[in-house]
Amino acid sequence: GRTAAIARVVSGPAELLGRALLVRPDGTLLGGFGAHPELDRTVAAEAAAFLDAGRTGTVEAGERGERCGDPVTVLVESSVPPPRMIVFGAVDFAAALVRVGAFLGYHVTVCDARPVFTTRARFPEADEIVVDWPHRYLERTATDSRTVLCVLTHDSKFDVPLLRHALRLPVAYVGAMGSRRTHLDRLELLREAGVTELELARLHSPIGLDLGARTPEETALSIAAEIVAGRRGGSGLPLTGAHTPIHRDVPDRAGRRFGSVA
Amino acid sequence: GRTAAIARVVSGPAELLGRALLVRPDGTLLGGFGAHPELDRTVAAEAAAFLDAGRTGTVEAGERGERCGDPVTVLVESSVPPPRMIVFGAVDFAAALVRVGAFLGYHVTVCDARPVFTTRARFPEADEIVVDWPHRYLERTATDSRTVLCVLTHDSKFDVPLLRHALRLPVAYVGAMGSRRTHLDRLELLREAGVTELELARLHSPIGLDLGARTPEETALSIAAEIVAGRRGGSGLPLTGAHTPIHRDVPDRAGRRFGSVA
Repeated sequence: GRTAAIARVVSGPAELLGRALLVRPDGTLLGGFGAHPELDRTVAAEAAAFLDAGRTGTVEAGERGERCGDPVTVLVESSVPPPRMIVFGAVDFAAALVRVGAFLGYHVTVCDARPVFTTRARFPEADEIVVDWPHRYLERTATDSRTVLCVLTHDSKFDVPLLRHALRLPVAYVGAMGSRRTHLDRLELLREAGVTELELARLHSPIGLDLGARTPEETALSIAAEIVAGRRGGSGLPLTGAHTPIHRDVPDRAGRRFGSVA
Repeated sequence: GRTAAIARVVSGPAELLGRALLVRPDGTLLGGFGAHPELDRTVAAEAAAFLDAGRTGTVEAGERGERCGDPVTVLVESSVPPPRMIVFGAVDFAAALVRVGAFLGYHVTVCDARPVFTTRARFPEADEIVVDWPHRYLERTATDSRTVLCVLTHDSKFDVPLLRHALRLPVAYVGAMGSRRTHLDRLELLREAGVTELELARLHSPIGLDLGARTPEETALSIAAEIVAGRRGGSGLPLTGAHTPIHRDVPDRAGRRFGSVA
């Protein structure tokens, strides 16, 4: 397929400048820089994450793939469109979620059946604004294994048909907002609508990590953090005092970002 | 003191329009809307969080303080400057942290001793760019109990004198980036420099929640998530399946945002 990232050395030792390797979505690579093999592996792991995010940018590493040592800067160009975030429910704080989604590199769509709330003026940073019934839009739009669906409508009239469909799609994440009581009520309605326990187990609800979020921005951050942790295999716990390895030898969905900790 | 938020009803039942109450930083309130007392308490808890963030914005609640019921929109005006985030180290991915800090409402300063990296062009969203030795700047600038300090320099020449001072300040958060080995080495250097174990226990290092972050944006998100969880008493674990109460009766630093879950 066409989905791959090209990683090219743009600064560092003269003999490495311009050398490139190709990284596939699973982190495997074609070619190599011809320097230390650990550098290839480190860059491939980082590039796979960039590719997953549909993001182009630079990665810095040491000549032997470590943070220490002579720095090498690699430009990673991803040839895949950005992943989709679809926010259902043009509620007030959806605007904050749209901003965080865009920050993480998602192509963000806001969908709501109410034209008065579903406007460009309310969501200036959204890539797309759709006035339609959520479940009807989800049925006709294209999603894939990188797509994240955030259901903020908290109105069972919209939620139930939407979630029934969403939980059967092979998307990366389905989260729904609601108090714990709303959540329990919704689970019952979804069961009555024929959703299986296995499908229900995929639902992140109440949505987000427990950050104690209060402002709309904090709430949006807690949702984005849950999405990242789910896609990258993070636990949500502080790195302080953790005993898991930070660097891993092989590209690994559960690996941590080298730049974040080195 | 002058630090308080005014919460005023801007939409909802006609008899409530324009009514206001005053919220102090600890969440206690003066006055009331004269409707259901639970509405006062819900708004006060939300307004205290807005005040803590130095943020002005709207809160939505039901007439009885619940998410269900007739909606009431309250404008919260905070009369306190935004809290400070100081990012030490004009490293590449600091730009992403600056953006997330601004998103959360922080007044963001970037400080680094190297003028070639510490530029407006590299950090367009920073409120302030300072070229100075980190510890020297921290000694001369004003901080308070809402200030968060993020140390990304990972160079012991800068980190050790900076952290020695930072860990003695009554700020909200001190985090430092580094691999686990860098972290252990730094702990030794800090002990040699006279930092006590009690002071060291305040240090968040490696910085951030374990989200498995890989891209610079994901890493910045993991740091912001750790800051929010620390300030609001969150655990970092998914809200899905949690058994803690979501709504609380009294303003509480560990309470969760009503809007995030209702």
